[in-house]
Amino acid sequence: MEQNELKQLVGNEAVKYVEDGMIVGLGSGSTVRYMVDALGKRVADEGLHITAVATSNFTANQAQSLGITVKDIDEIDQIDLTIDGADEISDDFQGIKGGGAAHLWEKIVAINSKKNMWIVDESKLVHQLGAFPLPLEVIPFGSTHVLAKLEQMGYHPSFRKDDNQQYVLTDEKNYIIDLHLGTIDDPFALAKVLNGIVGVVEHGLFLNVVDTVIVGTQNGPKALNK
Amino acid sequence: MEQNELKQLVGNEAVKYVEDGMIVGLGSGSTVRYMVDALGKRVADEGLHITAVATSNFTANQAQSLGITVKDIDEIDQIDLTIDGADEISDDFQGIKGGGAAHLWEKIVAINSKKNMWIVDESKLVHQLGAFPLPLEVIPFGSTHVLAKLEQMGYHPSFRKDDNQQYVLTDEKNYIIDLHLGTIDDPFALAKVLNGIVGVVEHGLFLNVVDTVIVGTQNGPKALNK
Repeated sequence: MEQNELKQLVGNEAVKYVEDGMIVGLGSGSTVRYMVDALGKRVADEGLHITAVATSNFTANQAQSLGITVKDIDEIDQIDLTIDGADEISDDFQGIKGGGAAHLWEKIVAINSKKNMWIVDESKLVHQLGAFPLPLEVIPFGSTHVLAKLEQMGYHPSFRKDDNQQYVLTDEKNYIIDLHLGTIDDPFALAKVLNGIVGVVEHGLFLNVVDTVIVGTQNGPKALNK
Repeated sequence: MEQNELKQLVGNEAVKYVEDGMIVGLGSGSTVRYMVDALGKRVADEGLHITAVATSNFTANQAQSLGITVKDIDEIDQIDLTIDGADEISDDFQGIKGGGAAHLWEKIVAINSKKNMWIVDESKLVHQLGAFPLPLEVIPFGSTHVLAKLEQMGYHPSFRKDDNQQYVLTDEKNYIIDLHLGTIDDPFALAKVLNGIVGVVEHGLFLNVVDTVIVGTQNGPKALNK
């Protein structure tokens, strides 16, 4: 199977977990795009009644265009299930997210969800986190000084730029700095350090967040539970 | 002396510390407004050559209108001296800032400054921090859940609103939540907790930041050094 078929496969599998009446958190990214399509199909075909909360303007627009009711996260009490992608998942179910520059809203949605499910292909499963560059959302004001500090700390940071060499902007109009760490020995310790840096809004470490991972394999989707 | 005279007095005193060629950080708030006026006067009268970095759009506009060169913080290496106000200063030189909703940029400027000076009236000097509500800058997305969490933690939070009951917005278009703590026993421990809350961009605790405090008293300005 090709990459896109695998993504479609896990997207289809994930929406089977969505039940009538649920408040569902919708992640961001290419795999999620397939999942939202599949969810829209269930809403249209089965008359499934759900309310969605989106983690990006892109996903919100897609969901609405498919007839899914989208509410603001501040209009609801708690999300039942959030389905999102991930950039890396370690053996012990810790993750890196933010490859799509949406990890701030994704994390806010995730921590306000009873259950979190990540949908990925096998390449995202790693023994130890860190090969994927760790994204930080940073305030533009003073961000060159944050970069310099991170450099001094040995984190090999770089601003994320688009093909035209413009700074990538998040939905909050902040910048992204990617840390090229190679391996992360202690994600919890690193998270604490990054939380303490003035100007860093949020890092892409998602620790003790996910409950279920659906992996797309050549033999079909496989569910891993924490 | 009236309050405004005292503010003018410390403003005038503070700018005596500014030397030719310096890069000067300009805070925000009513006392700073007098200080920037006094600095503009030195630039006009003495031909003082300085470059300023501002902590708010308001201060930037004021400084520019007085003929002071204002640069973006990302255009300079390091600030020589930042002069700012404060809402509370404890016996051991720790502070609370953010009464003017500008503490995020103020903190970014402060930590990139070789020296920090705060200009206040005597009422801001306290034995222990906490009577002044501690401001947090928070991401609007999900902020009701942050408020609920802070409530559960016993921090007595409230959104800051203006006279028309609209959310006060920072220069970054974020909200302010004020924590009504009464007393803060361990500001460093509290800072760590607040740094770890997803959605909180920055808290108003300025710890180990200030070097010199200029206090306006009925007997004239008084300098306190750390």
